[in-house]
Amino acid sequence: MSIIITGASGYVGQELAAALLSTYPEITVTLTDVVTPTVPESAAQHASRARCLEADLTSPAVVDETFTAAQPFDTVYLLHGIMSSGSEANFELGMKVNLDATCNILDRLRTVTPGVRVVFTSSLAVYGPAPAGFVIDETNFPAIPASSYGSQKLIIETLLNDYSRRGFLDGRAVRLPTVTVRAGKPTQAASSFASDIIREPFHGRKAVLPVPKETEMWICSPATVVRNLLHAREVPKEAFGNGSRAVNLPGLLVSIQEMLDALEVVGGTERRALVEEKYDADIDRIVQTWTPNFNTARARQLGFVEDVSMMENIRQYASRFA
Amino acid sequence: MSIIITGASGYVGQELAAALLSTYPEITVTLTDVVTPTVPESAAQHASRARCLEADLTSPAVVDETFTAAQPFDTVYLLHGIMSSGSEANFELGMKVNLDATCNILDRLRTVTPGVRVVFTSSLAVYGPAPAGFVIDETNFPAIPASSYGSQKLIIETLLNDYSRRGFLDGRAVRLPTVTVRAGKPTQAASSFASDIIREPFHGRKAVLPVPKETEMWICSPATVVRNLLHAREVPKEAFGNGSRAVNLPGLLVSIQEMLDALEVVGGTERRALVEEKYDADIDRIVQTWTPNFNTARARQLGFVEDVSMMENIRQYASRFA
Repeated sequence: MSIIITGASGYVGQELAAALLSTYPEITVTLTDVVTPTVPESAAQHASRARCLEADLTSPAVVDETFTAAQPFDTVYLLHGIMSSGSEANFELGMKVNLDATCNILDRLRTVTPGVRVVFTSSLAVYGPAPAGFVIDETNFPAIPASSYGSQKLIIETLLNDYSRRGFLDGRAVRLPTVTVRAGKPTQAASSFASDIIREPFHGRKAVLPVPKETEMWICSPATVVRNLLHAREVPKEAFGNGSRAVNLPGLLVSIQEMLDALEVVGGTERRALVEEKYDADIDRIVQTWTPNFNTARARQLGFVEDVSMMENIRQYASRFA
Repeated sequence: MSIIITGASGYVGQELAAALLSTYPEITVTLTDVVTPTVPESAAQHASRARCLEADLTSPAVVDETFTAAQPFDTVYLLHGIMSSGSEANFELGMKVNLDATCNILDRLRTVTPGVRVVFTSSLAVYGPAPAGFVIDETNFPAIPASSYGSQKLIIETLLNDYSRRGFLDGRAVRLPTVTVRAGKPTQAASSFASDIIREPFHGRKAVLPVPKETEMWICSPATVVRNLLHAREVPKEAFGNGSRAVNLPGLLVSIQEMLDALEVVGGTERRALVEEKYDADIDRIVQTWTPNFNTARARQLGFVEDVSMMENIRQYASRFA
């Protein structure tokens, strides 16, 4: 059995690849990205079951080569993309990578491997601002994105729903909370700071907080996100019913203040002192459009798991990376 | 001042062209369609201000030729499209005409005439089935289409919102109720019967009713739709606020039984007797996914007008065409 991940060099892509290789001894995993991905260190002992492929999926010819009937995949994880700030700063690039390339892939898949399972990492950025305190679920609030990134995610969800309804593909769109604490470097996501303010101090580096401390966010630990990405593949398609294949994944409602407090408890006052407040109106404008209140009953009903506490999340980061 | 209409050979396109030419003595109107449109008979005296253009807008080269900075339009009315049953029967064609061609036009417009007003006829088919009796407005229910047609409409709305938010264009997406009573021939719309059962008897022809008489629909008379399409151009962009440019247009909630009763009152029992019930599961499946209950307070607030009664609607048809 064979699984492919696009955007596999990214943080979530690497974590997912490691989890797939470690969890399922029988599968092979193809990692693709615009530069050749590496096999995650934590899965080095499974490297013989990993294939790493340089693939610029904005090229229709490369899409055709990558997805062929001769080498069918059991599941396609679509994780590639230009992140939120990046898509806002460079509209053309975001459209090309997030929208056009993904459309080409979906269309290729329905031709060469009809019915194939497709797990798409969408985002809660499909929602624009909600009234203060309003708790969103999949049925009570329209997805009206307030960013190009969110618009592109919503469009792919809409196509994935239609393709699934018609039986072309078996799509699952999981709307990820802000993934925190990410290992690695700061990213082009507007939410990068939510990991930076925990990760950087653990490596003795300063981090910038560009939004007010009262800001509330809807976050999820990497470990929980990866567990839920594995689960997204395993949900029987009948469980989605006739409606949308999009699910708001479980997460944790935290204020930045609570994140900083948890950092201080787990990491100490010196690490906490490395976080510097430096307001950035551009980042704040985007972050303020993200609503932090979700009822994820649908996700739980479909078998997705709840996130851990903020302190446990930080402890997990520290035990692996610090 | 110059206005262009795509899909101008269609019923609504012809009515709109006539209304624009008659209402605004200073404007010229370019009518485009895949076969050269004609100037509507009712606007024959304004023919010198109308330009009729054969344009297959699925060709990017034709899009480039049609929309040039050298001949800028004040407003672009995007009315072209494969209708609901057509898009369901021929997925590729619907995607090409409803999605790809429209994407190309939007992208062309933002390059050659940035900020241009774009009025897009969307549809209430962006909504899937709602719980029985639930009254939809733009804020309380997610648009999760249950057809390829609705999916394509929602995707263009999403792009139009993002383009408008970024200042690329000044978009207005008006979600039309089922336009009834249409003159002309039966169409590929799943809702064609809603006009057929009134129009055909007025011309002495039989009409088929493919859905149960208890079916409720959300309809609007052509005259009201055209008035609201003119108005869509005139709404100041500030009135939309920072949110969506999509508006659920006013309409009328009627059951098929009420439509038949009104036909009998206005047209007599002989005409009523020309409607034959002949159930069509394919049509019914699509129609049942359209919810008929809308609160259109937002449209009224933006200055769109309410529809006339079913009897008045039928009288308007009869006085013009019968």
